[in-house]
Amino acid sequence: MQPKSSPLGEFDLIQRFFKTGADAMHSNKEKVITLGIGDDCALLNPAAGEEIAITNDMLVEGRHFFANTNPELLGRKSLAVNLSDLAAMGARPIGFTLAIALPKVDAAWLEAFSKGMFAIANEYSCPLFGGDTTAGPLTISITAFGSIPSGKAIRRSGAKAGDDIWVSGTVGDARLTLAALRHEINLSDDELKQIEQRMHNPTPRVDLGIKLRDVASSALDVSDGLVGDLNHILNQSQVGAEIFLDSLPKSTSLKKQSEVIQNQFAACGGDDYEICFTAPIGKREAIAEISKVLNVPITRIGSITAKEKANENMRLLNQNGELLNNAQTAALLKSFDHFAK
Amino acid sequence: MQPKSSPLGEFDLIQRFFKTGADAMHSNKEKVITLGIGDDCALLNPAAGEEIAITNDMLVEGRHFFANTNPELLGRKSLAVNLSDLAAMGARPIGFTLAIALPKVDAAWLEAFSKGMFAIANEYSCPLFGGDTTAGPLTISITAFGSIPSGKAIRRSGAKAGDDIWVSGTVGDARLTLAALRHEINLSDDELKQIEQRMHNPTPRVDLGIKLRDVASSALDVSDGLVGDLNHILNQSQVGAEIFLDSLPKSTSLKKQSEVIQNQFAACGGDDYEICFTAPIGKREAIAEISKVLNVPITRIGSITAKEKANENMRLLNQNGELLNNAQTAALLKSFDHFAK
Repeated sequence: MQPKSSPLGEFDLIQRFFKTGADAMHSNKEKVITLGIGDDCALLNPAAGEEIAITNDMLVEGRHFFANTNPELLGRKSLAVNLSDLAAMGARPIGFTLAIALPKVDAAWLEAFSKGMFAIANEYSCPLFGGDTTAGPLTISITAFGSIPSGKAIRRSGAKAGDDIWVSGTVGDARLTLAALRHEINLSDDELKQIEQRMHNPTPRVDLGIKLRDVASSALDVSDGLVGDLNHILNQSQVGAEIFLDSLPKSTSLKKQSEVIQNQFAACGGDDYEICFTAPIGKREAIAEISKVLNVPITRIGSITAKEKANENMRLLNQNGELLNNAQTAALLKSFDHFAK
Repeated sequence: MQPKSSPLGEFDLIQRFFKTGADAMHSNKEKVITLGIGDDCALLNPAAGEEIAITNDMLVEGRHFFANTNPELLGRKSLAVNLSDLAAMGARPIGFTLAIALPKVDAAWLEAFSKGMFAIANEYSCPLFGGDTTAGPLTISITAFGSIPSGKAIRRSGAKAGDDIWVSGTVGDARLTLAALRHEINLSDDELKQIEQRMHNPTPRVDLGIKLRDVASSALDVSDGLVGDLNHILNQSQVGAEIFLDSLPKSTSLKKQSEVIQNQFAACGGDDYEICFTAPIGKREAIAEISKVLNVPITRIGSITAKEKANENMRLLNQNGELLNNAQTAALLKSFDHFAK
């Protein structure tokens, strides 16, 4: 007797699309995952002297992605945003669990989604080892797990006055893509095609995060906008910051826009999944070397300062080195807030 | 400068309702959780010689609970169903993460939901230590973590021919409640009030699970219906089973129903969150002692047999000890399948 199920009932579904095969689990080289999908729980047996980093992101259709989003890219991005959180702590990915609500069983959609998800999972040796599947409005909740030597995690609370502030890659491109798709700005088809990769297919900076373990004093991933996210470091480290807007690394496409758009998208556009981190001045050479080895641009964008009075701990400087006044700052800052929209 | 947010923007929301205070984290006695909410990742530092058990359940409004469900009970149950999975492995809860999509910011609802959730979290020393909050159709995804001495987890794959099959508590009450709420059967108001606790407020058998570590050969929690769930043990252990329908433990309310309803609800009703387990015959005394110490009924409901031919590995026996034929079995078995309904 087998459990009763429709041609694509829950059990078949999990089996067919989400059960990690021997191939994928092969990436579980150090046997940290001692039991995968198919029991009440999965089991992890962490390596001695290692902590487990855990992050959880929920993506909702119509909120985090359009209904017609390419499912292969969506599968890829759903895991990428979680790997980005692991990277920001300096953790090496070890695996993930997926809870997914699906409005219907669409085999073609599921095949593409799981293809994209498993492609990036294999790239980063991060197998699926548990989860849940149910009917419901399309919602993807991934919990990703990383390993990091005890005490080596890069926290948000470690920034010190005098530290440099750095960011990887370029910022503002996902926001630029969104603006183009919403017809708020015009981009040529060629340009959109190139830049939209940054929104649909972000690269988690996993190797960078690992190399920053002994370099960065604090770090986070830029998902809700650089300036808003950096505030979490300032609050938790009890410090202030000076940011040179002109230094923010921008793509060629973004540089073609007006200065207002450039600053706003680079400072506040969400969905970049770059790493923003702080490091003592003495680490500048080490950072240049990491940038070279990984072939990832890393740009110094400001300095950590002693904490200013409450609500004024970040000072934004324009291209002339002049401090933005309150009205200018307010106009610039539109940090992404899911409920404030 | 603070991140821009509405009166109850995302940051405030997490802060106000879901940030675990010092009190709740106090239950993290052994400091397994080395970093909680507020960074890119949380950090776990497992005790030496312990494995981490991980489970993930997603609850969707209209599918797993009614839109008008009491939010305090919903908060409680959302965590309870995950604790039940930990219990089924023999794991001791250490903490959980919550990803939640909310259609709107309803302070009263959130207050009640978090009250229920934190009440059971404190009861089981299982603090919230991470997660995500977003706008979207009401969806609750909890990942719960437990600790268990390496190699001691009770897996589904360990049942052996000759083992007894046991189940805790009573089964079928949640299904009985559902039938009453749907007016498929009649229950007095008093009776419904009493029995509906079993659906809205299930008790995870955490202490039982821990005590079964050295007793049970296999175990799982009964969430989708006893017989359907037991099939997972049979498949993974490559064994068969004989189940005495008359032995299934039923509440007084269920016993008042027709024999057909009794058998169907007890054998196949979902949402019971009892533990079904197998154990060698030599463990009967130990099991009686556990039942007495914990004051939890534990009932022997059948035996594990050598594997029969494919698709016929479970034999159901009626009150006269007669084997149900295929038609009778098919009529009885309506294992809960989210997509098959």
